[in-house]
Amino acid sequence: MSDQNVLDKVSEHVRETALLESTQALLEWDERTGLPKQAGGFRAEQVTLLSGIIHRRKTDPRLGDQLRQLSQGPLARERNSQQGATIDRLLKDFERNARLPTSLVEALSKATVLGQQAWEKARHEDSWDQFQPHMEEIYSLRKQEAELLASGDTLYDALLDQYEEGAKSEELTKTFADLRDALIHLVQELSEAPRKPNGQSWRRPVPIENQRKVSRWIAEKIGYCFDRGRLDETSHPFCTTLGPDDCRILTRYQTNFFPSGFYGTLHEAGHGLYEQGLPTDWYGLPPGTFASLGVHESQSRLWENFVGRSSEFWQWCFPEVARQVGGAWDGLDAQAVYRDANLVAPSLIRVEADEVTYNLHILIRFEIEQELMAGELRVADAPQAWNARYEHYLGIKPPSNQDGILQDVHWSAGLIGYFPTYTLGNLYAAQLVEAAERDLGGLQPMFARGDFRPLLEWLRQKIHAFGFCYHPGELVQRACGTALDAQPLVDYLRSKLSAVYGQS
Amino acid sequence: MSDQNVLDKVSEHVRETALLESTQALLEWDERTGLPKQAGGFRAEQVTLLSGIIHRRKTDPRLGDQLRQLSQGPLARERNSQQGATIDRLLKDFERNARLPTSLVEALSKATVLGQQAWEKARHEDSWDQFQPHMEEIYSLRKQEAELLASGDTLYDALLDQYEEGAKSEELTKTFADLRDALIHLVQELSEAPRKPNGQSWRRPVPIENQRKVSRWIAEKIGYCFDRGRLDETSHPFCTTLGPDDCRILTRYQTNFFPSGFYGTLHEAGHGLYEQGLPTDWYGLPPGTFASLGVHESQSRLWENFVGRSSEFWQWCFPEVARQVGGAWDGLDAQAVYRDANLVAPSLIRVEADEVTYNLHILIRFEIEQELMAGELRVADAPQAWNARYEHYLGIKPPSNQDGILQDVHWSAGLIGYFPTYTLGNLYAAQLVEAAERDLGGLQPMFARGDFRPLLEWLRQKIHAFGFCYHPGELVQRACGTALDAQPLVDYLRSKLSAVYGQS
Repeated sequence: MSDQNVLDKVSEHVRETALLESTQALLEWDERTGLPKQAGGFRAEQVTLLSGIIHRRKTDPRLGDQLRQLSQGPLARERNSQQGATIDRLLKDFERNARLPTSLVEALSKATVLGQQAWEKARHEDSWDQFQPHMEEIYSLRKQEAELLASGDTLYDALLDQYEEGAKSEELTKTFADLRDALIHLVQELSEAPRKPNGQSWRRPVPIENQRKVSRWIAEKIGYCFDRGRLDETSHPFCTTLGPDDCRILTRYQTNFFPSGFYGTLHEAGHGLYEQGLPTDWYGLPPGTFASLGVHESQSRLWENFVGRSSEFWQWCFPEVARQVGGAWDGLDAQAVYRDANLVAPSLIRVEADEVTYNLHILIRFEIEQELMAGELRVADAPQAWNARYEHYLGIKPPSNQDGILQDVHWSAGLIGYFPTYTLGNLYAAQLVEAAERDLGGLQPMFARGDFRPLLEWLRQKIHAFGFCYHPGELVQRACGTALDAQPLVDYLRSKLSAVYGQS
Repeated sequence: MSDQNVLDKVSEHVRETALLESTQALLEWDERTGLPKQAGGFRAEQVTLLSGIIHRRKTDPRLGDQLRQLSQGPLARERNSQQGATIDRLLKDFERNARLPTSLVEALSKATVLGQQAWEKARHEDSWDQFQPHMEEIYSLRKQEAELLASGDTLYDALLDQYEEGAKSEELTKTFADLRDALIHLVQELSEAPRKPNGQSWRRPVPIENQRKVSRWIAEKIGYCFDRGRLDETSHPFCTTLGPDDCRILTRYQTNFFPSGFYGTLHEAGHGLYEQGLPTDWYGLPPGTFASLGVHESQSRLWENFVGRSSEFWQWCFPEVARQVGGAWDGLDAQAVYRDANLVAPSLIRVEADEVTYNLHILIRFEIEQELMAGELRVADAPQAWNARYEHYLGIKPPSNQDGILQDVHWSAGLIGYFPTYTLGNLYAAQLVEAAERDLGGLQPMFARGDFRPLLEWLRQKIHAFGFCYHPGELVQRACGTALDAQPLVDYLRSKLSAVYGQS
C-alpha cells in the first residue's frame, strides 16, 4: 500500500475517533448547561463507556504500525507540512499512550474523579486535611506517569509538554522571572498613583436579559459566527468544540457585576474565534487542531484584554452598550468605564484578578507545582508555601485555604503543568499584538471604529490557519519574528496603566 | 455457566448498548434545541457512526447464542416475569435484526435521510412530484423488509408489530370503524348545536415569558419531576429519554395561541410521567422500557385531554393561570376557557385537530397506508385518495398537497404502520380513565382540587411499573378488565361535548 493510502486510512481512523470525542464533549457540555440533578451518575457511565471505546481506538496496534511505517517514508520528511505534522504528532501521541500501562491510566482516571469530588467538598468546608491525601495520590500517580514519559527532561517538563509541546520549564522560569520583577514593581507604583479608578461603574445593576443581548452583540461584532456556534450560560465559563462547525462558548452573568458576563464572553469568544479559524477540512487531525493551550489562551486574552480593555474599544462601544443596558449606565461615559476596566489591585482569587496581578497568581502556582514534582516540597507543606508566596508577591495573606490553595480545580483534576500556559498566553498575546500593530499599521484607530476584521484576518493567517503544524513556540516566533519575551507585555501594561492612573 | 449468569452477561451487554443509544438520543435532542446552522452535516456523521456501533452490538452472534440458550431454560418460562420478558423481547429483537441484510438496513437508512430532506423541500414548495419517487422508494424498501419479517401476517402487520407488538390491522379496522361512525355522527350533531365555543380566549396574546412559567408550573403540578428532567423549546414538541433519571420534554410557544405551549407541555409531560414511572433498575432492558407507542400515547393524551380539557381541571387552575399570565386573561372565567378548550371543528391539519376529529385524520392515514402496502393503491394515486377521504370523513377538501398528503413527516421517515398508534392511544386512555374512575371512585373532584397524585399512582401501579413485561393489549386489558373497545372514548366525548355545546 502506498504511503498516501496508509495516511488516508490513518486519517479516517483518527477522524472517526474525533467523532466519538466530540460526542463525549457534547455529553460534557450538556452536563454543564442543565443536566437534571439526578442524572449525574448515568452521565458518568456514558462518558466512561465512550472513554474506553476511544482509548481502545487510540492504542490500536494497527494504528501504531501504520504510523511507524509512515514516519520512515517521504511524507514524514516535511515535518511542518500538513501531512508531515499529521504523522509526527499522531505518532508521538500514539507512543505516549502506548507507554502508559492501562492500570496507571485507570488509576489516574479514578483518582481524579474522586479528587475533584473531594476538592469540591474540601473547598466548601475549608478543609485542607480532607483534600491532602487526594492531592498526594494524584501527584504520586502523575510522577509515575512522568517517569515513564520523561526522556532526558525533568519530570515536570514531561507533563508540561502535554499542554505546551516543546516548552521547557527552565526557559519559562527565566522569562517569568523578568515578568515577575517588572509586575511587582508596577503594582507598587500604581498603588501610589494619584488617580486610581474605583470600579463603581461595574457595580451598577444591569438586568441579566440586557447583559445577554450585549454579550451576543459583542461576540458577533468581533467576528464570532453564530451559524457555527452558540452562547450559553454556566457556572464556570468555558469554550468547547463539538465539530468543525460547532464551537460553543459559555459565560455567566451577575446582575451586580457587569464585567463577569461581558469579559467572560469576550474571553470565550476569543477561544471560539481560534477554533472557528482552524482548517475545517482537517478537523480531528493535527492541522485542524489548536497548537497548544498557551496559544489558545493567547487568543482569548488578546480579545478580552488587549482589545476589550483598550480606550478606543470603549470609545466605540460605549454608546451602544449604554443603550442596550437600558438606563443602567445613565450618567457614565466611555472614559469612566474604560478606567474601571483597568483597575489594578492585589486580590486573593486568580479568576477575578486584573491583567497585572493575574500573572503573579500563575507564577505562585508554577513555582509550587515544580517544587512538588521535584520532591523539594511535600504536599503537606504546600498550603504554607502558598500563603508565604501570596504575602511575598502580592502583599496579602490568604485568610483561609478555601480562598488560598483550595481555590482552583486544576490539581484535583490531575492538571499539573497546566498553569504556566495561562501566563504564556498573556506573553504570546502581547507579542502578537505588537507584531500585528507593526504589520497592519495601528490597531487602535480600527478599534475606535469597531473594525476588528483586519486583526482577525491577521490572526487567521498567522496563527489559526496552521493548526498544530508548528510547535507553539515556533508558531508564535514565525508570526512575530521574535522568541518568547516578557518585554512586550510589560511595555503594554506600563504604557496603558500609567495613562489610566494619571502618571504620564 | 448457569442461566442466571448468562442472563447477567446479556443484561450487561444490552445496558451498555443503552448507554450508547441514550448518547445518540442526546445528539438528537441537541440537534432539535439549537444546533448551530452549519453543524448539521457533522452531527449526521456522529449519529451514523454511533448507529453502526450500536447495530454491531445488537447483532453480535454471541448475544444471539446466549439468548437462544436462555429461551430454552427455566428463566424464560414465565414469559411475563421481568426475567422472562427480558429473554422473550430481546430474542425477538435480535432475530428481527438478524433477518434483515445489512444492505437493506443501509438502503432504508439512506432512503429515509434523503426522503426527509426531500419531504421538507417538497412540502415547502407544495410539490408532490418531487416527493413521489422518494415515497415510492421508501414503500418499496419497507415492503421488502416486511416480506422478510412477516410470518403468516399481512405485510402491513409486520410493520405495525414494530410499534405495537401483537396488534393486528384486522382487529384495529373493526374497532376503528365503530369509532369512525360514531365520531362522524358526533361532528354532525355538534355542528348544529345551539351554543358553540368560539375559541377567542385562546387568541389573547400572552407573553412567552409568562407562558414558560405556566408550563413549568403545570408540569410540576401533575407530577413531572424536574430533578429527573427538563423542559425546553423546539419547533415540533417531543419527549426523549437520555437515561433512567433524565427524561426531557419540549414544547413550543406562540404569543397569540396559548394552548400551543400549554397543551404541548401537558401532552409531553404525560409522556414524561410514563418514562419517569418505569422501573429505573431495569433501564435499557424490556422491564424498564415502555410497552408500545400506543400505550405511550395513551399517557400523553390522558393528561392532555381527559385531565387538561376537563371542567374541574379548569375550575382548579384558572385562578392561578390567570394570575401567571399577568393581566392577559382579565375578564375571562374558568368556564370560558374550558369551553374554548373543547371547540370541535373539522380542519386540515392533524396536529392542530380537536379531540374528536383527530381520530378521523388518523383513520385516513391508516386506511391509505394499508392500501399502499397491500398494492391496492399506487403511490402516484395517494394524493387523490387522501383528498377524497378528507372530503368524505371531514367534509373539507384540501386546497393543496402541502396542507394535504405532504403535511406529516412520518412516511418520509419510513414510519409506516405508526399512525394507528395515535388512535390506539386515545382508545386506551378512555379505557384507563374509565377503570381508574371505577377503582378510585370519582376523579373529577380530585381534579377540582388539583390533586393528581391518586390518578398518577394508579397509572404507576397499573401501567408504568410493568414496563414491557406484557404486550400492550394484555397490559391495558389487565389494567381495565376489558379488551380494546371504542365505546369508552365515544361515551366520554359525547358526554363532555354535549354539555359544552348546550345539548343536554
